[in-house]
Amino acid sequence: MGVNTFGTRFCLTTFGESHGEAIGGVIDGCPSGVPVDFKMIEDELRRRKTAQDTTSSQRNEPDKVIFLSGIYEGMTLGTPIAFIIKNEDAKSSDYDNIKDIYRPSHADYTYYQKYGLRDHRGGGRSSARTLLPCVVAGAIAKQILHSININIKSFVTQIGEERSDSFSMEEIQEILQKVKDRHDTVGAIVRVEVDNVEIGLGEPHFKKLQAALAEAMFSINAVKGFEYGEGFKAASMYGSQCNDLFVRDENGCIKTETNHSGGIQGGISNGEKIYFNVAFKPIPTIMQTQKTVNKEGEEVTYNVEGRHDVCVVPRVLPIVEAMTAIAIMDMELYRF
Amino acid sequence: MGVNTFGTRFCLTTFGESHGEAIGGVIDGCPSGVPVDFKMIEDELRRRKTAQDTTSSQRNEPDKVIFLSGIYEGMTLGTPIAFIIKNEDAKSSDYDNIKDIYRPSHADYTYYQKYGLRDHRGGGRSSARTLLPCVVAGAIAKQILHSININIKSFVTQIGEERSDSFSMEEIQEILQKVKDRHDTVGAIVRVEVDNVEIGLGEPHFKKLQAALAEAMFSINAVKGFEYGEGFKAASMYGSQCNDLFVRDENGCIKTETNHSGGIQGGISNGEKIYFNVAFKPIPTIMQTQKTVNKEGEEVTYNVEGRHDVCVVPRVLPIVEAMTAIAIMDMELYRF
Amino acid sequence: MGVNTFGTRFCLTTFGESHGEAIGGVIDGCPSGVPVDFKMIEDELRRRKTAQDTTSSQRNEPDKVIFLSGIYEGMTLGTPIAFIIKNEDAKSSDYDNIKDIYRPSHADYTYYQKYGLRDHRGGGRSSARTLLPCVVAGAIAKQILHSININIKSFVTQIGEERSDSFSMEEIQEILQKVKDRHDTVGAIVRVEVDNVEIGLGEPHFKKLQAALAEAMFSINAVKGFEYGEGFKAASMYGSQCNDLFVRDENGCIKTETNHSGGIQGGISNGEKIYFNVAFKPIPTIMQTQKTVNKEGEEVTYNVEGRHDVCVVPRVLPIVEAMTAIAIMDMELYRF
Amino acid sequence: MGVNTFGTRFCLTTFGESHGEAIGGVIDGCPSGVPVDFKMIEDELRRRKTAQDTTSSQRNEPDKVIFLSGIYEGMTLGTPIAFIIKNEDAKSSDYDNIKDIYRPSHADYTYYQKYGLRDHRGGGRSSARTLLPCVVAGAIAKQILHSININIKSFVTQIGEERSDSFSMEEIQEILQKVKDRHDTVGAIVRVEVDNVEIGLGEPHFKKLQAALAEAMFSINAVKGFEYGEGFKAASMYGSQCNDLFVRDENGCIKTETNHSGGIQGGISNGEKIYFNVAFKPIPTIMQTQKTVNKEGEEVTYNVEGRHDVCVVPRVLPIVEAMTAIAIMDMELYRF
Repeated sequence: MGVNTFGTRFCLTTFGESHGEAIGGVIDGCPSGVPVDFKMIEDELRRRKTAQDTTSSQRNEPDKVIFLSGIYEGMTLGTPIAFIIKNEDAKSSDYDNIKDIYRPSHADYTYYQKYGLRDHRGGGRSSARTLLPCVVAGAIAKQILHSININIKSFVTQIGEERSDSFSMEEIQEILQKVKDRHDTVGAIVRVEVDNVEIGLGEPHFKKLQAALAEAMFSINAVKGFEYGEGFKAASMYGSQCNDLFVRDENGCIKTETNHSGGIQGGISNGEKIYFNVAFKPIPTIMQTQKTVNKEGEEVTYNVEGRHDVCVVPRVLPIVEAMTAIAIMDMELYRF
Repeated sequence: MGVNTFGTRFCLTTFGESHGEAIGGVIDGCPSGVPVDFKMIEDELRRRKTAQDTTSSQRNEPDKVIFLSGIYEGMTLGTPIAFIIKNEDAKSSDYDNIKDIYRPSHADYTYYQKYGLRDHRGGGRSSARTLLPCVVAGAIAKQILHSININIKSFVTQIGEERSDSFSMEEIQEILQKVKDRHDTVGAIVRVEVDNVEIGLGEPHFKKLQAALAEAMFSINAVKGFEYGEGFKAASMYGSQCNDLFVRDENGCIKTETNHSGGIQGGISNGEKIYFNVAFKPIPTIMQTQKTVNKEGEEVTYNVEGRHDVCVVPRVLPIVEAMTAIAIMDMELYRF
Repeated sequence: MGVNTFGTRFCLTTFGESHGEAIGGVIDGCPSGVPVDFKMIEDELRRRKTAQDTTSSQRNEPDKVIFLSGIYEGMTLGTPIAFIIKNEDAKSSDYDNIKDIYRPSHADYTYYQKYGLRDHRGGGRSSARTLLPCVVAGAIAKQILHSININIKSFVTQIGEERSDSFSMEEIQEILQKVKDRHDTVGAIVRVEVDNVEIGLGEPHFKKLQAALAEAMFSINAVKGFEYGEGFKAASMYGSQCNDLFVRDENGCIKTETNHSGGIQGGISNGEKIYFNVAFKPIPTIMQTQKTVNKEGEEVTYNVEGRHDVCVVPRVLPIVEAMTAIAIMDMELYRF
Repeated sequence: MGVNTFGTRFCLTTFGESHGEAIGGVIDGCPSGVPVDFKMIEDELRRRKTAQDTTSSQRNEPDKVIFLSGIYEGMTLGTPIAFIIKNEDAKSSDYDNIKDIYRPSHADYTYYQKYGLRDHRGGGRSSARTLLPCVVAGAIAKQILHSININIKSFVTQIGEERSDSFSMEEIQEILQKVKDRHDTVGAIVRVEVDNVEIGLGEPHFKKLQAALAEAMFSINAVKGFEYGEGFKAASMYGSQCNDLFVRDENGCIKTETNHSGGIQGGISNGEKIYFNVAFKPIPTIMQTQKTVNKEGEEVTYNVEGRHDVCVVPRVLPIVEAMTAIAIMDMELYRF
């Protein structure tokens, strides 16, 4: 299987460099006869684009999705759904000064060592822009999951040292503005909740539901940690605190009294809410002079130009949700 | 690909229920001409078995590995390496009382709902015993990695509320004994370090090295969290703190001044030490009366019999290392 | 995916060398709750073993299957079904004289060049004996297919120059005895028919049903050709002769008037009988002195000892049917 | 793995319906640093397009390939190579009369039954046009193979009843014109030869080189048979006739005296020329009135309009070579 494909039944193959002709993807395995809501797909892309205001990258491309195949008269055909987003507003010359430099904590150095060459413009294949095709495929996955009542939500729960279960967009902007004023960037934590996944999703040994979700989350640039249920906190707990006791609810159905497990037991969904946290490092591009080395191995200093976010949130939320939707959709196709 | 296979080039397929005829595995993709150190494999199994003393499960089977194929005159043939470990000391009758009961925070309920039947004896397929084949395959992977200078180490860094970077085995036993005296179990954190991975391991988009490692770790029972490099702590950091600046070392080689990245940038190893943390929940089997429900959906109480650990550590260490070795070995075969 | 695995949903991984400890397989993806008819599995192995009499290899092992996992109280668990067949009657010393010789039209030379070493005993991994695990897995696949009314039959239609649509076993033995008397071996053609496959099996582009069947057949040693429907004869036909016209049958159902297509159109089953032919070359081990070279590259002569068939038929029939069953079962799990 | 992907290391994912927005493909796994000869790619597409004259389909689209990613300054990046070919000259209205009809021996009926809907225009996904992306990917594979001296050639050896090892293009046109004058179509056989594949290509059990080639060939529309080496003729041969004896050549290298094996022994290339034959059925679209049924199950008559070939040859040659190149390139990446 190609290394640019995620999933084995609902398969997304992505392609594209940030300043190449286009980025895009191919979804193979989408069931036939699904009506596609194109407006919802654009809305998801817009969420990713316009979430931030003064603190986010200003690149102005329309991010218009063009579907090439797999959909006829608004319905999926069961054949591969290919789509592209053109790279129209790319200012490649902004990146001329990094052509021969390895930016700190970026992928420049490792790409160059791995491949022997790279498309440096805009970060090439390692640009966060290359996750846009995930948003498109995730939107389609969300639509199908929604039709079986599964909903995916995500929230910012931490930005730098600030923690809250109910950040408003104003509070987020305020925190980010302070970071911007320092000419710095900052990390964050995102919480995801998935409702109404029926019992039985996930495979027990090597395709555990948590393994699929973790793989999905670590496919997103800048993710450094993933935990589900009590996560790292579970390490501090006793079994008598952490166990979820089974009880009958008012309808005679089996439920757990608590949900420390995060909706997954033995790698398989148990019908409770699935929830997990994803930790992001600060964006490595900061508006400060940093030292680094160039391709000749000489130590140089490096100053950023161009357009750059100060934090992955809130723009990363639709990407996190999209990868969650793709992973869950893929696992749903394992049921028979 | 089967859901009981891990890896796509160094592929381990495992099989077996805890009290069935045997557990075992098949390694497909192991290079030919590798001399196999059988004693080292047994040592790894012994580490897993005898790590604990009074606080661990007393099951007494020899865990003797029988190799069936793929090795001839002590050398790998390049053909599939199959091996089994017989389940000789299984006391299935110990489990009669749980035949119709869903043990809290175990996989009984989800398995039963998923498959419509299960082998309840000893936890069946969801028993931690079914990870033994990973230890065997991991030992072979370790031997190959060792020949290219890659070493994998793991440490306990937290048990319940107790944290240390240098627990002695006595301290661990002491902590666990206290938990045992409470008739309870407890969670833990394990830190893994991998030295001397050369630059270029990992694929940049969907087979990022961290995604492969996370998938490997979440294949281990009771794992609730995974973080690499600064992990969740990175969420609290500024970019200016978290970036790893490139410098020249005394030999003129490019290095990073710090290693907040945990040896991975853009999904690809950068030549620095790879390190990550894995969080485990408390073992769900506690020596206390718990309420639960049975297959008929009736609320019942449940008392544990049989032999049970109070914590996954230290016995889980060889399993953690083994899955790390398998994941890294698999990715090594992607280089060309 | 490992190169010793066939199928992606009903996955069979096989292992074993002819004179190693055991051969065997792991079936991953078999649905749960299937009752297993063990006697039928043994019958299939017996068909493969005793089909021939004086003209076939005399190796006398019982070919007793030992199931290790995945079945509990006679029912499949949905977990991997592992099984082994021990290599008990192997007379490895029979093969001492070929240790350093490349037998003509065998795999000795290519294996040695590919892997740098080999287990020469009995042909090692390239022995036809290593197809026995396919018979076991195929028997289970057949049982499941039978429950949905799909039946697979195979016939010998050609041995050497002799052709017939209705060879009796006596005629076959007679032909083979004549070949044996010449101290020679001979090729053959087998025809396979699959009844009652419902419309819609097979994927239209790269997992066409005929591609899956061809891949399955070419996994069998000594197969040199595969054709379905009119096959090579279609090359000589006009469209007006070869087209299958659609008509309504007496029940108002759509049928084709003829079945030149062999039950597959556009890569997808159309509900008609699926049929195909498989050509086998003569077994390369002949009771005559042949010239060849040894590992040092010296030209030598070579005389066969040991036990050897004169033709793959009729013993190959259960293998052909088994691989057909596995391929079809695998594709059935693609429907949803 | 998606069902529209061929190969597991050099992976081609294709997409597109005949009259949709575009057809195209994504190559994942192409090594980095390969210079791309774009003119040669266009030449291959032209071979496929203009091979025939009066007897072939007249569709006039330019078949211009647009590369979207994976190539920078004329060199492959090691990232996915995506490309599209727009469907500009599609006359969809030509197909209005088949919207509700199942054309005999086409995929209309099976697609409709499988998916519940279809894009009928120009045959939709089942059109031979959807094999164009294979030509593009095959051209790139050919270029890489050419750099290691591997060459792939194909010839027409049979059209209808006419057989020759050295058809001239004039002879082919003459034969096809006669068929056209009958308002009919005809089948054909193509022979493929691959030179200079080094020993060791192919995996011995389930990824035998012949299995990979067969899978590749049966991915091409209208293929009904595949044989390699002596193929079906081997069924009539004695072992003493069919065996390839090993000898030393003048340089002391090991060779086979004959090549009945077609360059493959035990599933692995042996260094001799690889050759095989592929049988094609007649194109099902004939310029005659045929009876069939419509979606309502009513018997109707059907007359062809539009532009149609009378035989797959010679236009299919670049497709056959392309799929051969992709299969061999994929297997080459298994060597290590």
